[in-house]
Amino acid sequence: MTKKASGASATRSFEIDAPSLRAGLKDVGDIVEKRTTIPLLSNVLMTVSPTALVLSGTDLDSWGERHVTLDGDADPMRITVHAGTLAKIADKLTASDRVRLALTDGKLTVSAGRSRFTLPTLPADDFPNAPDKAWDSEFEIPAINLGAALSTVAFATSTDETRYYLGGVLVHAQHGDLRFAATDGHRLARGIVALPDGAATLPDIIVPSKVVKVLTTLLGRYEGQVTVRACSSAVAFEIGETTLQAKVIDGTFPDYARVIPTQYDGLLKVDRETLVAAVNRVTTVSSDKVRAVKLSIRHDAIALSVSSPEHGTGDEEIPCEWSGSPLTIGFNSRYLLEIMAHMTAIEVEATFTDPKGPVLWRDREGSPATFVIMPMQV
Amino acid sequence: MTKKASGASATRSFEIDAPSLRAGLKDVGDIVEKRTTIPLLSNVLMTVSPTALVLSGTDLDSWGERHVTLDGDADPMRITVHAGTLAKIADKLTASDRVRLALTDGKLTVSAGRSRFTLPTLPADDFPNAPDKAWDSEFEIPAINLGAALSTVAFATSTDETRYYLGGVLVHAQHGDLRFAATDGHRLARGIVALPDGAATLPDIIVPSKVVKVLTTLLGRYEGQVTVRACSSAVAFEIGETTLQAKVIDGTFPDYARVIPTQYDGLLKVDRETLVAAVNRVTTVSSDKVRAVKLSIRHDAIALSVSSPEHGTGDEEIPCEWSGSPLTIGFNSRYLLEIMAHMTAIEVEATFTDPKGPVLWRDREGSPATFVIMPMQV
Repeated sequence: MTKKASGASATRSFEIDAPSLRAGLKDVGDIVEKRTTIPLLSNVLMTVSPTALVLSGTDLDSWGERHVTLDGDADPMRITVHAGTLAKIADKLTASDRVRLALTDGKLTVSAGRSRFTLPTLPADDFPNAPDKAWDSEFEIPAINLGAALSTVAFATSTDETRYYLGGVLVHAQHGDLRFAATDGHRLARGIVALPDGAATLPDIIVPSKVVKVLTTLLGRYEGQVTVRACSSAVAFEIGETTLQAKVIDGTFPDYARVIPTQYDGLLKVDRETLVAAVNRVTTVSSDKVRAVKLSIRHDAIALSVSSPEHGTGDEEIPCEWSGSPLTIGFNSRYLLEIMAHMTAIEVEATFTDPKGPVLWRDREGSPATFVIMPMQV
Repeated sequence: MTKKASGASATRSFEIDAPSLRAGLKDVGDIVEKRTTIPLLSNVLMTVSPTALVLSGTDLDSWGERHVTLDGDADPMRITVHAGTLAKIADKLTASDRVRLALTDGKLTVSAGRSRFTLPTLPADDFPNAPDKAWDSEFEIPAINLGAALSTVAFATSTDETRYYLGGVLVHAQHGDLRFAATDGHRLARGIVALPDGAATLPDIIVPSKVVKVLTTLLGRYEGQVTVRACSSAVAFEIGETTLQAKVIDGTFPDYARVIPTQYDGLLKVDRETLVAAVNRVTTVSSDKVRAVKLSIRHDAIALSVSSPEHGTGDEEIPCEWSGSPLTIGFNSRYLLEIMAHMTAIEVEATFTDPKGPVLWRDREGSPATFVIMPMQV
């Protein structure tokens, strides 16, 4: 990482097949800032050794690095070039194209087939490296488990900048589990996976939403074990040939477990798809801003109702099983639908205390994924 | 069309199957104004007779009317209801649903399956009818031919409000053909179909772009003959169960035939897909605003070139046949690609006079679709 591009007028070059270049740029591309006042941050750093190309991108909060094996006769160099432009070029090449990248006089020429592009470069030495960290914890977890746990909770994160400590997913080791939680104050999602070896020393970390999004995409493209390293200020994920390191949110996540109801006055069981279809239909008449849906729950049926002064009313009744006294309660329909989308059972259940208290939704008792939603006044 | 909804407290109702209601609303929905300060114009007029439902929508410039056959025991009524809301409801019903629409005390209740919606209505008597016209010309044309001719030229219409007379497609009878033309001053498209019986008396009409768009959609869903009626101020299309009537643009379309080159200094033949792929690749480096592509044409090859101070340069060479002297010429790449997308031949041809004169593109000599593009300074 300390080698410099030498001799301005000499040409240094390497070759790579188009799909490898494309895949590499894709893995770091999501990190690179699309709109930034610092031109260097729009660029991708290419560190070329005789046998490897390392692509690096950063937004100063997170760093992505992708290793691509080369054939062995590449000229070593370090250059930065506009990530979006190079990715667009790579996207438009045909899969069989062999791409030659040559650096002459500070310009990068990209040749493939009958096409040739000349791109301006910026100095590689100014490119911000990922900070070195002393990790407190290191463990392995299957990519599919980590991806599923993050996907289950990420939708519930807050976008409110004044509550920046809710703008990510809390990951922490507790009660012999690895737990994931997110909330925006109106709804909460929690996921649980078995504690991997080495994860007991994991400090509580809040992984920012942007990082969770990039990470989820990377995990979706990878099968195998992911190595996670963490300290109180940063986290790093080694996903095959790709490394993602990020600052964690410097704040304290609220004691969310207190919000999760442990007792209840009534248990509801309902067919998930029937509920989703009914909510989708009755909200047809809801105005864009207020999306409240009223549920009147009896022992064998839920009457759903939406009313909008402008568009009229929508009503539908669906069957259910309800153990409590008749109850009328309101929900933000979007929140309710998002929770339904993150459950998997055909029949799901919910526990209620009173029309103003938090409602817990889950596939069934003991399910690792748990969702809590606060009612709305209707 | 003169019957009024009577007796405020009596309920009048009719039934219709969900797919018929959905299809009917779809056909008039594109006419209805999505955003308007006149609430009635957001509504669809439903005129119910014992055997038919007629759905009408208007934006005061165009009127759509769709006839749907009913079973025969409907209560006659005329009501207007929010078109978008009713269409969204219809979209969410299942295909097997039988829908009951009932009017009580000025409110429309829509019931299907376990759902029930109550929608506010507005008085039907205030709903603006399509003006009666004395038509100068009436002819029939296959929907597929009319649709193809309109699609071929519509992309070239202007969106410049100061040149409102270019904001539509000119349709006129000339030289024993029915001709279609559109231009925005930078490019021009012309389509020709055989003159239908009765079309010789067609006055020159400019059909507004919005109407062309709605019409093209309707034509795409219909197989059969379309009846066209026109006078100097309006045009109407009878497309199966749907009628579309519209004001035509009150202006004079320029004598576009003068812009179409009839002589040339050089003839170019090029593989269309190869040219499209090359333009797409070299423009990767073009900035968003300037999209000029430079073509340097020699007897057997075109060198395409794009240069952007910010993103670098892109170059590609493709084979061609060129009969003239070497020529360098610039085009707006978007215009060039749009023209290519409206041609159909594998190898297309273009005729050039000089680097500043209009260039004619066509599938081959004598093709009904002809495109003219003005060069850009590069």
